[in-house]
Amino acid sequence: MATIVLHSINRTVQATARKCFLPYSKGISTDSHLALFHNISVQRLTSLSAARCAPKITGVRFLSHGTAGRTAPRQTKRAALLLAGAAASVAGFLAGVIHFQRAEMASVIPKAGEEVDEEISAKCKTFMSPPCTDISVLQQRKGEMSTKMEMLIMETQAEFCRALEEVDGTKFQVDRWERNEGGGGISCVLQDGKVFEKAGVNVSVVFGHLTEEAAKQMRSRGKVLKGKNGKLPFCAMGVSSVIHPKNPHVPTVHFNYRYFEIEEEDGTKQWWFGGGTDLTPSYINEEDATHFHNILKEACDKHHPQYYPDFKKWCDRYFYIRHRDETRGVGGIFFDDLDSPSQEEVFRFVKSCAKTVVPCYLPIVWKHLNDSFSPEEKDWQQVRRGRYVEFNLVYDRGVKFGLATPGSRIESILMSLPLTAKWEYMHEPLKGTREAEMLEVLRKPREWV
Amino acid sequence: MATIVLHSINRTVQATARKCFLPYSKGISTDSHLALFHNISVQRLTSLSAARCAPKITGVRFLSHGTAGRTAPRQTKRAALLLAGAAASVAGFLAGVIHFQRAEMASVIPKAGEEVDEEISAKCKTFMSPPCTDISVLQQRKGEMSTKMEMLIMETQAEFCRALEEVDGTKFQVDRWERNEGGGGISCVLQDGKVFEKAGVNVSVVFGHLTEEAAKQMRSRGKVLKGKNGKLPFCAMGVSSVIHPKNPHVPTVHFNYRYFEIEEEDGTKQWWFGGGTDLTPSYINEEDATHFHNILKEACDKHHPQYYPDFKKWCDRYFYIRHRDETRGVGGIFFDDLDSPSQEEVFRFVKSCAKTVVPCYLPIVWKHLNDSFSPEEKDWQQVRRGRYVEFNLVYDRGVKFGLATPGSRIESILMSLPLTAKWEYMHEPLKGTREAEMLEVLRKPREWV
Repeated sequence: MATIVLHSINRTVQATARKCFLPYSKGISTDSHLALFHNISVQRLTSLSAARCAPKITGVRFLSHGTAGRTAPRQTKRAALLLAGAAASVAGFLAGVIHFQRAEMASVIPKAGEEVDEEISAKCKTFMSPPCTDISVLQQRKGEMSTKMEMLIMETQAEFCRALEEVDGTKFQVDRWERNEGGGGISCVLQDGKVFEKAGVNVSVVFGHLTEEAAKQMRSRGKVLKGKNGKLPFCAMGVSSVIHPKNPHVPTVHFNYRYFEIEEEDGTKQWWFGGGTDLTPSYINEEDATHFHNILKEACDKHHPQYYPDFKKWCDRYFYIRHRDETRGVGGIFFDDLDSPSQEEVFRFVKSCAKTVVPCYLPIVWKHLNDSFSPEEKDWQQVRRGRYVEFNLVYDRGVKFGLATPGSRIESILMSLPLTAKWEYMHEPLKGTREAEMLEVLRKPREWV
Repeated sequence: MATIVLHSINRTVQATARKCFLPYSKGISTDSHLALFHNISVQRLTSLSAARCAPKITGVRFLSHGTAGRTAPRQTKRAALLLAGAAASVAGFLAGVIHFQRAEMASVIPKAGEEVDEEISAKCKTFMSPPCTDISVLQQRKGEMSTKMEMLIMETQAEFCRALEEVDGTKFQVDRWERNEGGGGISCVLQDGKVFEKAGVNVSVVFGHLTEEAAKQMRSRGKVLKGKNGKLPFCAMGVSSVIHPKNPHVPTVHFNYRYFEIEEEDGTKQWWFGGGTDLTPSYINEEDATHFHNILKEACDKHHPQYYPDFKKWCDRYFYIRHRDETRGVGGIFFDDLDSPSQEEVFRFVKSCAKTVVPCYLPIVWKHLNDSFSPEEKDWQQVRRGRYVEFNLVYDRGVKFGLATPGSRIESILMSLPLTAKWEYMHEPLKGTREAEMLEVLRKPREWV
């Protein structure tokens, strides 16, 4: 039987989010250290898993130095070479999960004498779990975009989760899972906490083969790609998150940053990035919306003056609940199929965006954390949650793609749904109320900066 | 300004549902009488409408004898001649609503000296609202299938609503609405009652023109239909209902009976019926499920020995949440595109089915009405409600069609969603619990009779 190795990390998270609202923190600093190492067998781990978490643990190929880890480089070869993926959410792109584990923290003990890249190795120790790809593979391919992106999404997941844990005082539940067809993911969920009703931060790195038709659908520009015998090797990776707080004055946030590679018949590699961050309040707070958009604009402006205005519009267009004639929230940015001016430059842009998720959102959470609210305000939040469900189940391309893929990891795809939601027949706020004011904004998106 | 006429009906509903469980009542008897007549202007009605119900009342063409009613026969001509429609739910087939009113009860005062068909006229007085088509038109065309079906759906709505009102002690809110492109509907909703969290019973009669492609998609057998310049005049009508009770031991029920007519280029009329009734409990109760299926089987067997087994299977197949690998509930019957042996015979079958909705469901409600339940059982019901939302938003053909139709009456389409629902991450009942037993049935549909 394969042996898996776990460790706990006791981290002192340095104030990643300031408790005062202005000026907003624009970066995060973390100070982490490893504390405990435990060897726990698979059987032990299984017994540690909560009873409601039933999946079998049948393998541990995510470990770079364990027994099972030995077979990993061959398995992940395609991952490092061939990448591509779904348009809207990598979280939705998860099929045929067979390997699964739950652990508070997990990392790797290097074998005596084994060569270790200190930079990658040290970074990995700060993650919520070891990366999806074996650390040894990442070390061998540290110059490749797939490695840089996997490190970025793992880092983003950890930074965001730590910041939320600090606010909530509750730890994330960390689930690792593997995909039959190749790759896997790490789902971090905090449910029914003090501040958050449901917070999900998901990373996935998946690979395999696509049909030409599926590949075409994955690019928003619908380029025709030619595969060997109609099949195209691909890899997709990304981090995605939806946070639903309890207090109706704390908005919901969503972000997703993703990278795709696909190999054509002649060996040409197509690659592109996509992503975005958007805010869904139940009540309009101009200061919050302006702050949120300002942080995103600054990140965009460092790379191209047209990025913010274009991606802001794209966001309003994408997160649109057509049958309600409402946007989902006050927007943010959204982009897809970004493949110029260069891979390095787009990556730097995506990195800038990913670095904004904490400073975009956390100050808003800290600001409204203790706002008082009435049962009517909670009720309105529940109605807005219902609209969130409508968008996610009816329109979100990532969710639709995920649900339509046989063997998907449904729990990771639908992690974005709120814990609770409400549908009241003919719910229409009275004129002049704060609820009506919110609706006005949703029906006519504003400029915030 | 058009004048509309309202009246209140004080009804003594004779025990339509027995308070003892066995033997089940198989029919319903109602005793109704008209009590009050009030003339209320449109302005008065507007002011009577709750503030949350904002739509404009811009016309009253549903009245057969009012000012606006005079123009109705021309407008509804197509309705009586040309019928067709959506596959799964007529409730979803409602586009471009402009006329709308809310009234406790509504009917028609015949003008002095006007000739009235007593049978149709008397029946209409027992409805929740006057029928969608002018009573005078129905009287002129009493032999036509469209009239017979409209009378049946109105009757079914009234019988079911009265039976639910009797259990709950709360009156339905009755909303009439019209559709820009032709036709309209009557939505009856009881929300946050004593027994029911949300109960919706919707009737609609809509007509207009379809493209050949849309017409093809509407028939489950996908027949190619040839229209004049690619356009096919059609009419669709039906009654549909979803009842979500508060007590987790009282199951949710859904039914829908519908009729379509479509006219081809050469004047040939295609027609077909569809429908079904299905039960969605949170906890398995074999006696309930057996009763429910028995009543449906008896109704089917009167018409064809193959109906029940075929339509039971069809129901399990249709109400299947693919991404969960679960059926929505314990099934019932479902059929579509039924056009043989004859229009009259299929209508008689549909009528038999429609007559079962009260005896199928009400005894189960009365039986479990006062069952005690724990917070954990309520929680499980909320999780199952979440699955109901998933089915309706992701798979239900009627909902999908309705949401994709610009100008649809969204409130009538999404009336089927529960008042409250829940999504817990990785919710998996413990082995041996009643929740796990329910899941087993949903994962492997049973034979109940």
